[in-house]
Amino acid sequence: MRYRPAMQLYDYLPSGNSYKVRWVAAQLGLRYDHIDVDIHAGETQSKDFLALNPAGQIPLLILDDGRTLAESNAIIRYLADGSDLVPTDPYDHAKMLQWQFWEQYRHEPAIAVARFIRNYAHDTRSHELAALMPRGHAALAVMEAHLRHHDWFVGAQCSLADVSLYAYTHVAEEGGFDLSQYSALQTWLARFSAQANHIVITAKPNDLAWSCVGTS
Amino acid sequence: MRYRPAMQLYDYLPSGNSYKVRWVAAQLGLRYDHIDVDIHAGETQSKDFLALNPAGQIPLLILDDGRTLAESNAIIRYLADGSDLVPTDPYDHAKMLQWQFWEQYRHEPAIAVARFIRNYAHDTRSHELAALMPRGHAALAVMEAHLRHHDWFVGAQCSLADVSLYAYTHVAEEGGFDLSQYSALQTWLARFSAQANHIVITAKPNDLAWSCVGTS
Repeated sequence: MRYRPAMQLYDYLPSGNSYKVRWVAAQLGLRYDHIDVDIHAGETQSKDFLALNPAGQIPLLILDDGRTLAESNAIIRYLADGSDLVPTDPYDHAKMLQWQFWEQYRHEPAIAVARFIRNYAHDTRSHELAALMPRGHAALAVMEAHLRHHDWFVGAQCSLADVSLYAYTHVAEEGGFDLSQYSALQTWLARFSAQANHIVITAKPNDLAWSCVGTS
Repeated sequence: MRYRPAMQLYDYLPSGNSYKVRWVAAQLGLRYDHIDVDIHAGETQSKDFLALNPAGQIPLLILDDGRTLAESNAIIRYLADGSDLVPTDPYDHAKMLQWQFWEQYRHEPAIAVARFIRNYAHDTRSHELAALMPRGHAALAVMEAHLRHHDWFVGAQCSLADVSLYAYTHVAEEGGFDLSQYSALQTWLARFSAQANHIVITAKPNDLAWSCVGTS
């Protein structure tokens, strides 16, 4: 039996962006070494880390051959290449990207940042919340409107668009967003987490029973 | 000779995000009807427009069959499918997406917003510039560091990563960013604009000699 050499994931467990990568890896049975990065201690801004990712952000994937890949939505696209999580129809594929770019531009900068502030930076950045809350609710309302008429964001099954949007939506209440008013969204959250091989955001990679990748 | 029915592009000529779409369409000889949207008059927030794109943003592409596609980087991925602008190697493809997601998260929210404020909202939003300028320069420095050792952002030829980054970088000086300190970046800007079928951001679609798409 042949084992695939380990990739390395520079990671921070509470990060929704990193969780996207862990979720897809668990779904597909991909093995990797997990390197915990303390973002609060400035480890993403160290000279060594910036040499790997000049953007100074986790998640960062190091491939078996040393090549690097950053940006959560690019990493999961790479890992899920050829799987059912990536639509093959050109329009559906572009629609998946539409939701993922929207997530990084409209959703994450409001909902993930509000969560970060409430969890870690309430003393210094809580003045930002007044502007972030309506932006976050506007994003949640766009999702709710779509989910009233669709089970998934693209096509008839879960795609990377759902993965990207689930990551910070399912912990939006940590950012102060009351999700009880979004009933279709709550149904979608339950639908997503009911899938086989689902992992929760706090699951440590070492807790998981990794599948063996490759053929005998 | 068979003509492809027209797509419709909801557009605003000074928008760098819309320019990405116009540039790719010109490059590939794709024909579309151009619908000018006055973003300053709130036309992207009208009930009719929000029914087409709940995110309330241009560019928005309407396909021949009425289906919609938003987010500039998703639209150009759809239009350029199968062309030399989209790398086929899985890693190169993911690296293209990495730069495009970085562009929307780190580059556009600083550089495009500073340009918008200086061009249209100086009276009401100039207090935002103090925070935007260092963020924009940090993004330009990341590009400069890459371009010191590479002609293009991914692989050995122009890809959609270059298109996405060119759009607002080449007009960054309108946002108050002095590009004279970024010599490799300036060389890349000249390399990009020297390509065949290049169009400038202010080119009106009706000025262009559209190619005929399809086979006889």
